[in-house]
Amino acid sequence: MDILSRVIDDIEDAALAARLQHQLDNKTKPRGSLGRLEALALRLGIILGTEAPLLQAPQLVVFAGDHGLAAHGVSAYPSDVTWQMVENFLAGGAAVSVLARQHGLALTVVDCGVRHDFAPRPGLVIAKVAPGTADALQGPAMTEAQCRQAIDNGARLVQGLPGNVLLLGEMGIGNTSAAALLMSRLTGLDIADCTGAGTGLDADGVQRKVEVLRAVLQRHPDARAPLQALAALGGFEIATMVGAVLQAAAERRVIVVDGFITSAAVLVAARMQPAVLQRCVFAHRSGERGHALLLAQLRAEPLLDLGLRLGEGSGAALAWPLLVSACAILREMASFDSAGVSRASAATVV
Amino acid sequence: MDILSRVIDDIEDAALAARLQHQLDNKTKPRGSLGRLEALALRLGIILGTEAPLLQAPQLVVFAGDHGLAAHGVSAYPSDVTWQMVENFLAGGAAVSVLARQHGLALTVVDCGVRHDFAPRPGLVIAKVAPGTADALQGPAMTEAQCRQAIDNGARLVQGLPGNVLLLGEMGIGNTSAAALLMSRLTGLDIADCTGAGTGLDADGVQRKVEVLRAVLQRHPDARAPLQALAALGGFEIATMVGAVLQAAAERRVIVVDGFITSAAVLVAARMQPAVLQRCVFAHRSGERGHALLLAQLRAEPLLDLGLRLGEGSGAALAWPLLVSACAILREMASFDSAGVSRASAATVV
Repeated sequence: MDILSRVIDDIEDAALAARLQHQLDNKTKPRGSLGRLEALALRLGIILGTEAPLLQAPQLVVFAGDHGLAAHGVSAYPSDVTWQMVENFLAGGAAVSVLARQHGLALTVVDCGVRHDFAPRPGLVIAKVAPGTADALQGPAMTEAQCRQAIDNGARLVQGLPGNVLLLGEMGIGNTSAAALLMSRLTGLDIADCTGAGTGLDADGVQRKVEVLRAVLQRHPDARAPLQALAALGGFEIATMVGAVLQAAAERRVIVVDGFITSAAVLVAARMQPAVLQRCVFAHRSGERGHALLLAQLRAEPLLDLGLRLGEGSGAALAWPLLVSACAILREMASFDSAGVSRASAATVV
Repeated sequence: MDILSRVIDDIEDAALAARLQHQLDNKTKPRGSLGRLEALALRLGIILGTEAPLLQAPQLVVFAGDHGLAAHGVSAYPSDVTWQMVENFLAGGAAVSVLARQHGLALTVVDCGVRHDFAPRPGLVIAKVAPGTADALQGPAMTEAQCRQAIDNGARLVQGLPGNVLLLGEMGIGNTSAAALLMSRLTGLDIADCTGAGTGLDADGVQRKVEVLRAVLQRHPDARAPLQALAALGGFEIATMVGAVLQAAAERRVIVVDGFITSAAVLVAARMQPAVLQRCVFAHRSGERGHALLLAQLRAEPLLDLGLRLGEGSGAALAWPLLVSACAILREMASFDSAGVSRASAATVV
């Protein structure tokens, strides 16, 4: 299998879209009155190719990895927090653990390249390419072979998952830096517009982070194609996620995108295969600087806008019940005819 | 019992708020990184007076009533749709029925003054003051005695409900007009700024609606106190909701406010007893013109902004899982100490 050589089909279907819209318009409510939930229902129907979409066995996967760049003070937290938080995910104490439990989302944590050896256990997949990326200020974060390995790992992982929905999450001290680098390189936006406080840098810290990241981009002037940019600037968890997104798209799963880092992975995948975006639902607009601009680049309208900036897949989990609702509206609501409810009259003149 | 004479206590508690904030700041996440969910958790802790809030037996109540003003073409739908939709709620086919089922919300429909005789059945409470209000263009929509009766009905209803959460919903052809009238009268905003398309009037229809409503306000120049405004301009479902809100606030229940009409009921209640607002969580910003302004008047920051304009309590139901999440974060997330996760370091200089 080589997911990188697979073409992701265009799934837009005007006839199905028209049938879905007709169904929505005949539900017992004023036309369009469920707002963005209706657009979501239509999108889910298109992705799953049915007028009665049903989300099954949703899988929340948290991709974890460490970053050589973290040594340059681009994060407010030390790298050890990556493995400590993986333990916390598995022990059930992290935000995403709590939210996944609330919503019945199967939670899998993937060690894509954490600088730590984990004891194997249920819920943890070891797909470690290396214990953290190299320092992108010195050379490429990973070799192209490592990058392809991570992508392949992500694709294989998704192949083995049940259900028809993949919710994206991530953990990796330093990964807002990798995401900002990829965003700047692939969109052409200035790195300062792509760089935020991450886990909580102050204004001076952000300024230093921008300077480091600008130097990294200058170090890799030729890494411009998606795969080459991903290898030079990315992270193992991002590359593994790119493979997972491509595979999920090829299998026509619903892909629920969380915040800044998962959006950057989707950006990379979409630059390889634009039809990936047809399968994506964007959960929220993060408080991380750069995310709003990145969403605009992807022409994405997220569901929530709660100032979240945690990652882990927490925003994807919080938005999840809206997807369930959108499907339930299509599947369970009565029509004007079936319920015997009168339709709109022309407004009478007073 | 007379809920109108009961003083609603101030429940703000700086010491409890500080303990809640401390708890949130020590959860395994960057400080503040759960954004508005953290403010919500704090609010729910304050309302329920505990560091470990738990929402129990949530009650979604849909208050239904008809409006004399509907005869003037202020709605795109005929008045019969009110009782037809009540039947639809009870049969399980309306949006709010579907969403309540999804989230395990107990759904009760209250006939506060529908122009129809319903057969009694489970889930339906008959608290009918009269079969629809009078035409407010001719005289008061209801007498003060009727208004007090409706408020009392609402208070008694909530007294009999289990749990500690009341989610507000409503149904009533013509009730965006009543809500706009109350908003304009109690806030001093021009009626044109308070009036929207409701169930779907076109621009000409909205213009005619504004003219009718302006004439109604001129017909009742002295109805300025909350109770008198409510009687002259309101509806039975709104007045019953005012009683329910006052009672829920007195019992320190969490009150989840839906869209434009439920917000207008909360406005009336808050003008009677300002501390009511301390118990309110605003579910969403509706697409109905006037709602954003009304929320600003109430200094409310809603959770969702999805362009919903259906009412019924649909937005309250859609926001519900966020409240559950906020409590789960407080109750179930690990702290840095309990999980052995390192805290933020000062950003190192590069």
